[in-house]
Amino acid sequence: MPRYALKIEYHGGGFSGWQRQKAHPSVQQAVEEALRRLEPDAPAIAAAGRTDAGVHALGQVAHCDMARAWDPFRLSEALNHHLKPEHVAVVDAARVADDWHARFSATERQYLYRMICRRAPLTHDRGLAWRVPQAMDVAAMRDGAAALVGQHDFTTFRASECQAKSPVKTVDAIEVTAAEAEVRIAVRARSFLHNQVRSFVGTLERVGAGAWAPDAVKAALDARDRAACGPVAPPDGLYLTRVGYPADPFA
Amino acid sequence: MPRYALKIEYHGGGFSGWQRQKAHPSVQQAVEEALRRLEPDAPAIAAAGRTDAGVHALGQVAHCDMARAWDPFRLSEALNHHLKPEHVAVVDAARVADDWHARFSATERQYLYRMICRRAPLTHDRGLAWRVPQAMDVAAMRDGAAALVGQHDFTTFRASECQAKSPVKTVDAIEVTAAEAEVRIAVRARSFLHNQVRSFVGTLERVGAGAWAPDAVKAALDARDRAACGPVAPPDGLYLTRVGYPADPFA
Repeated sequence: MPRYALKIEYHGGGFSGWQRQKAHPSVQQAVEEALRRLEPDAPAIAAAGRTDAGVHALGQVAHCDMARAWDPFRLSEALNHHLKPEHVAVVDAARVADDWHARFSATERQYLYRMICRRAPLTHDRGLAWRVPQAMDVAAMRDGAAALVGQHDFTTFRASECQAKSPVKTVDAIEVTAAEAEVRIAVRARSFLHNQVRSFVGTLERVGAGAWAPDAVKAALDARDRAACGPVAPPDGLYLTRVGYPADPFA
Repeated sequence: MPRYALKIEYHGGGFSGWQRQKAHPSVQQAVEEALRRLEPDAPAIAAAGRTDAGVHALGQVAHCDMARAWDPFRLSEALNHHLKPEHVAVVDAARVADDWHARFSATERQYLYRMICRRAPLTHDRGLAWRVPQAMDVAAMRDGAAALVGQHDFTTFRASECQAKSPVKTVDAIEVTAAEAEVRIAVRARSFLHNQVRSFVGTLERVGAGAWAPDAVKAALDARDRAACGPVAPPDGLYLTRVGYPADPFA
């Protein structure tokens, strides 16, 4: 069966997350149902990042096995036709080797978190960013974030239900940028613990608001204790932006 | 009665436009109802730009007359509290002179139009931009747009229901910029005819797609004939971004 990589964008708002669940709509289910409109026996698909309920994606990657050979462009067009009532779109498709795996072949994940600092409720960005009522001290957030880069035991920043074998991960970069009222936090690593980015952001928001000193982030990390984490940031602001592979299947 | 200027942001999707109508929800009605939660006899309000159904605003300006003196910050907070279920937010408020008028004191309006060029349906930007399936030739669009700058008879780019006395307007600037798949068209003038920006954009899209030569825009303008206009672009991509006054009331 020929295998295809799909680059998928979605609005997480209406979904219980990527992963298929019995009683709740998932992105995986939406894509699999579209695939089965093309080939009734299309098997289940696997994705690089199992995003949580409400989390968005600009560049999720999944792979699917098809019974017949599809032109990748036609495959993406046909899927988008069937996905139309959903807030999910296939933005690219490519033929890959039979042993290529969207999750296990991935060598990097990039996430972006959008915060908008203002008093007024959000209108166009409602559900697409986290509104925080006060201005952020971006320099202090950068100072705090620096402690999180590198290889560490991230027990503090890991959800209690996280299934990873080890709490040790390597964070390659955290970039905090600001433009007008918006603060963006971009995080890059080979892989992440469950809720790791939202735990980082909720903690860095405390630093930006002046409630925590920047070096309190390192103290929280060193505590290796979930209770030392700041509040977990809401899912609305989080985007899986890019999945990296040794060779870009979409290049 | 003390007068206040309000800077208002809204998602046009759920509204029949700015202006109050009998049977359809309008932004004006939403703001007036919030004002009447504060003061039951608050009079009707006036705005700088009467945006059409589905058109968005980042910086609409209206003024309201209140029975008592409000601290402007408290006024905006109270209005946002009552606007909460609506996709409307007051992002700034200021006390102005009793003869200051949101519409008649305005000396400039700025609009932005967002186009996203791609095959896949929009997810996060659904209702917030116009998706066009092909890439745009931005240099050709700039060439075409140049003919529209200055003082002209804009009969070609004016809706048949336009109520302006004269079709002659002065367009101060049209800027076409591109970043990744998005093309933005920013237009600036003292005032506009009805549907003028959407008529410009629909015509420039034809140029960007290669269906019209850039100098066909000047020919369409010179024709002074509504039938010479390109298709009118949909409202979803249009934003009233800024209203200019001799002295910025929010400075």
